[in-house]
Amino acid sequence: MRTAYEEELAAVNDDLVQMTRLVGSAMNRATQALLDADLEMAERVIASDAQVDALTGSIEERCFDLVALQQPVARDLRVIIGGLRIAASLERMGDLAEHVAKQARMRYPRPAVPQELRGTFAEMGGLAEAIVSKTGAVIATKDVSLAGDIAAHDEDMDRLHRELFGIVLSPKWSHGVEAAIDVTLLSRYYERYADHAVSVTRRVVTIVTGEPYVGVTLEA
Amino acid sequence: MRTAYEEELAAVNDDLVQMTRLVGSAMNRATQALLDADLEMAERVIASDAQVDALTGSIEERCFDLVALQQPVARDLRVIIGGLRIAASLERMGDLAEHVAKQARMRYPRPAVPQELRGTFAEMGGLAEAIVSKTGAVIATKDVSLAGDIAAHDEDMDRLHRELFGIVLSPKWSHGVEAAIDVTLLSRYYERYADHAVSVTRRVVTIVTGEPYVGVTLEA
Repeated sequence: MRTAYEEELAAVNDDLVQMTRLVGSAMNRATQALLDADLEMAERVIASDAQVDALTGSIEERCFDLVALQQPVARDLRVIIGGLRIAASLERMGDLAEHVAKQARMRYPRPAVPQELRGTFAEMGGLAEAIVSKTGAVIATKDVSLAGDIAAHDEDMDRLHRELFGIVLSPKWSHGVEAAIDVTLLSRYYERYADHAVSVTRRVVTIVTGEPYVGVTLEA
Repeated sequence: MRTAYEEELAAVNDDLVQMTRLVGSAMNRATQALLDADLEMAERVIASDAQVDALTGSIEERCFDLVALQQPVARDLRVIIGGLRIAASLERMGDLAEHVAKQARMRYPRPAVPQELRGTFAEMGGLAEAIVSKTGAVIATKDVSLAGDIAAHDEDMDRLHRELFGIVLSPKWSHGVEAAIDVTLLSRYYERYADHAVSVTRRVVTIVTGEPYVGVTLEA
């Protein structure tokens, strides 16, 4: 039988998994809003970020109480402090989904993404979905064998981000400066979303294996 | 007389102040490298980020040991966990200074910033310097009356960031898409640098006043 303390630790972990679902759904819907110039969908994504923020606050308070009241031993303390970091990264992923939705709203009723880049953003959205769902699985199961997959998806995301610069800077680009800036910022949101997911995965790996955490270097 | 525990808490706080100096100096030198197309200066900023990362790691480990070994009471625990968050934000500010330096390096020997925006980036650099030095003072003295100044500087930074979009998107912009993307990303690095400083200040205010932390919403 689990103690109340163990139950609470497990509940915090469940809430971290729930956060991956929320920020995954937010990015999916934001991508859809972006590609379909769907204002209503964009508004829903923007409104729903408050739920992610509230869950982050609740997780923080409960982690804090766990440390203060239970005086956990070294390994549990690493789990709890790791959980705080993971919640912060997931909250930031929610913000990035909201940024994508705001960009879709800002250009409505025009689409923010020109026709020839729709495929790129559809692919970025698909990668974001794959990464965040695997990140959720890593948190839920502590099966860190998925870390390789997540890193590979992140590399694909980086490649798409680099390729986008090539498209925007090509002499064939016919959409002007504003669209170039829009798609560059959008692409950066997806790329950073993936970086945060990699960072979350590394935190879990650190907790599971006891190896030191290696931060993710975020490139422009 | 202070106990060894209190000494260690004070030493961690001193190191957080030291981090504000390092990331402040990094952003100053990055701005100079950007405006002067100074490759050597840019390289030095990029190389020095390892020092910031190492100090972050050291602070994290010592915060962790403080919690694990000393089992601090509620208020001290908030100080230590707040310190972890502050270190993470300051590390990110160092990364942003490095991003600016990398942009200067990438365009060398050309300047990455066209003539008519040099004043904007000089001003952004000045604001970054003012913000980070006041943030250091808040951490050192716990005098939260500087929070208003810091918020005002952050608003000025946001205004400059918005104005830059206006300049880049004006029909008078003659520098093409690449320069437009360069300056937009650069401006975003300064704007986020300021946001992180505001976030650090709010963490200190939270610790000092016991009021709940209110996160900073980062706008594109």
